[in-house]
Amino acid sequence: MNGASGEGRLTLEDLKEKMANFAKERDWDQFHSPRNLLLALVGGVGELSEIFQWKDEVPRGLPNWEEQEKLHLGEELSDVLLYLVRLSDNCGIDLCKAVLRKLELNAIKYPIGLCKGSSQKHNQIKTSPETTATVAGAAADATTSTTSNDMYDLFD
Amino acid sequence: MNGASGEGRLTLEDLKEKMANFAKERDWDQFHSPRNLLLALVGGVGELSEIFQWKDEVPRGLPNWEEQEKLHLGEELSDVLLYLVRLSDNCGIDLCKAVLRKLELNAIKYPIGLCKGSSQKHNQIKTSPETTATVAGAAADATTSTTSNDMYDLFD
Amino acid sequence: MNGASGEGRLTLEDLKEKMANFAKERDWDQFHSPRNLLLALVGGVGELSEIFQWKDEVPRGLPNWEEQEKLHLGEELSDVLLYLVRLSDNCGIDLCKAVLRKLELNAIKYPIGLCKGSSQKHNQIKTSPETTATVAGAAADATTSTTSNDMYDLFD
Amino acid sequence: MNGASGEGRLTLEDLKEKMANFAKERDWDQFHSPRNLLLALVGGVGELSEIFQWKDEVPRGLPNWEEQEKLHLGEELSDVLLYLVRLSDNCGIDLCKAVLRKLELNAIKYPIGLCKGSSQKHNQIKTSPETTATVAGAAADATTSTTSNDMYDLFD
Repeated sequence: MNGASGEGRLTLEDLKEKMANFAKERDWDQFHSPRNLLLALVGGVGELSEIFQWKDEVPRGLPNWEEQEKLHLGEELSDVLLYLVRLSDNCGIDLCKAVLRKLELNAIKYPIGLCKGSSQKHNQIKTSPETTATVAGAAADATTSTTSNDMYDLFD
Repeated sequence: MNGASGEGRLTLEDLKEKMANFAKERDWDQFHSPRNLLLALVGGVGELSEIFQWKDEVPRGLPNWEEQEKLHLGEELSDVLLYLVRLSDNCGIDLCKAVLRKLELNAIKYPIGLCKGSSQKHNQIKTSPETTATVAGAAADATTSTTSNDMYDLFD
Repeated sequence: MNGASGEGRLTLEDLKEKMANFAKERDWDQFHSPRNLLLALVGGVGELSEIFQWKDEVPRGLPNWEEQEKLHLGEELSDVLLYLVRLSDNCGIDLCKAVLRKLELNAIKYPIGLCKGSSQKHNQIKTSPETTATVAGAAADATTSTTSNDMYDLFD
Repeated sequence: MNGASGEGRLTLEDLKEKMANFAKERDWDQFHSPRNLLLALVGGVGELSEIFQWKDEVPRGLPNWEEQEKLHLGEELSDVLLYLVRLSDNCGIDLCKAVLRKLELNAIKYPIGLCKGSSQKHNQIKTSPETTATVAGAAADATTSTTSNDMYDLFD
């Protein structure tokens, strides 16, 4: 029963609308230029980093963290998400469409068989010539832009 | 019928599952520790910033950008989103729940009437004593944590 | 004679002048607005992060890194430094003066005896009432501004 | 008379030593692992960004800023510098040497005549075949590593 009303059904579109309304009600659109929002996003990422900065490695699931710390972490993660959604909206980028496209590009660049257990960047993965051609061709079809920080790249 | 197939209906939960499957198929969970993902997120934000770095102010909607540049922007925005979703998941944070909570906190901190057209941080907004008490009380009820980079703060 | 020629004697002032000349010779001052430089700095930090992103914890001195990787790291550290120096200059901030002042503030906020072996933020350090008063007073004298991400703060 | 005693003569080496002593006196070396320091640096950059986030474009020299805001800015710039120096030291990177090398690489990549008034990245600058060969050759001699966020790149 996690239908339309459930939290699990929160869509990117919902978030975009909520943020747009929030800004409109407060007459804040004037502050939400792309670069203002980008710098606010950077600020949010800084605060996220500060939560982790003196902790050395942190195990998955944060087993020893206090509830308040997790709450704080959730707030900073949310701030980054909200700024990101708002930035996309004000740039006229359909984030939902963009992320689905990016997922496809990632699947092409990192074919399951070849990447298993490797964090190497896609152009360092050893492939047979045929595979390379296929992968490269598919990638070329799918994108007209290159990104240097792909999902699991080791270097950029 | 804008159900599972519609792009506009992409939920945070969908994204979380897609990313989890993607990592599992490639045996990449071993690389996805919280701090690894956080640094990858910072890398993505860096690439996002590089798109805007020499442009001076950029108008909303990016009217003069070429299609390829917008495509590139969409990719970097997506990378940040994907890392953020994955980071939340590996930290055991329900991002959907967290962001709905954060939206509520923001609404309490920045009451519509008081904030209209001001980018001042919530504790610099002039309020009548009663309002202050109400707002502060509500905020205290709703949160056990404080964040210093709120949605529209001028300073932190 | 470790004067102008010695690498160890490179001053912040030297760097500022080198960068100013570099920009002037190329007619690049027009691109070096504060926010352009700030975003370029963020880009540099992103690339720095990408070097470390899939490495899990990294021991001091980077014992197992290849020479080429260290060279790359040096380049990214340098980029951040150069953008920082240039940003300070274009903001009219004397970085040398500012950093000496900040070191003094840090020494006041984190008295040697009290902070030994603790990464707690300064206002969480247990002090006797007298010490608190002294420290707080000194800090109040020395600064008219507050920073939330001090040198070794656990939270902000 | 801004000689050895003057603030203008503060060297990177001085800063490195000051930071090393500061950490040693407080028994803080245990917290200063490379990735801890890197995340602290990201935190500092976030705070720097927050100063600029709602300001739209900011003119050089910050003519309308209050003294307190400039002081705050100087503190955040300093935090970034201090973390950067400390990170370099703990990675075993000679920042002074690295930055001088990077300045040379930048001068090779962006020859004065060719780059005048252009923010295009170095490989987009139109050159005659001879010049390209010379520049590329010199760059190849000088570096064994590539960086994607060079000093004035438009894209990366």
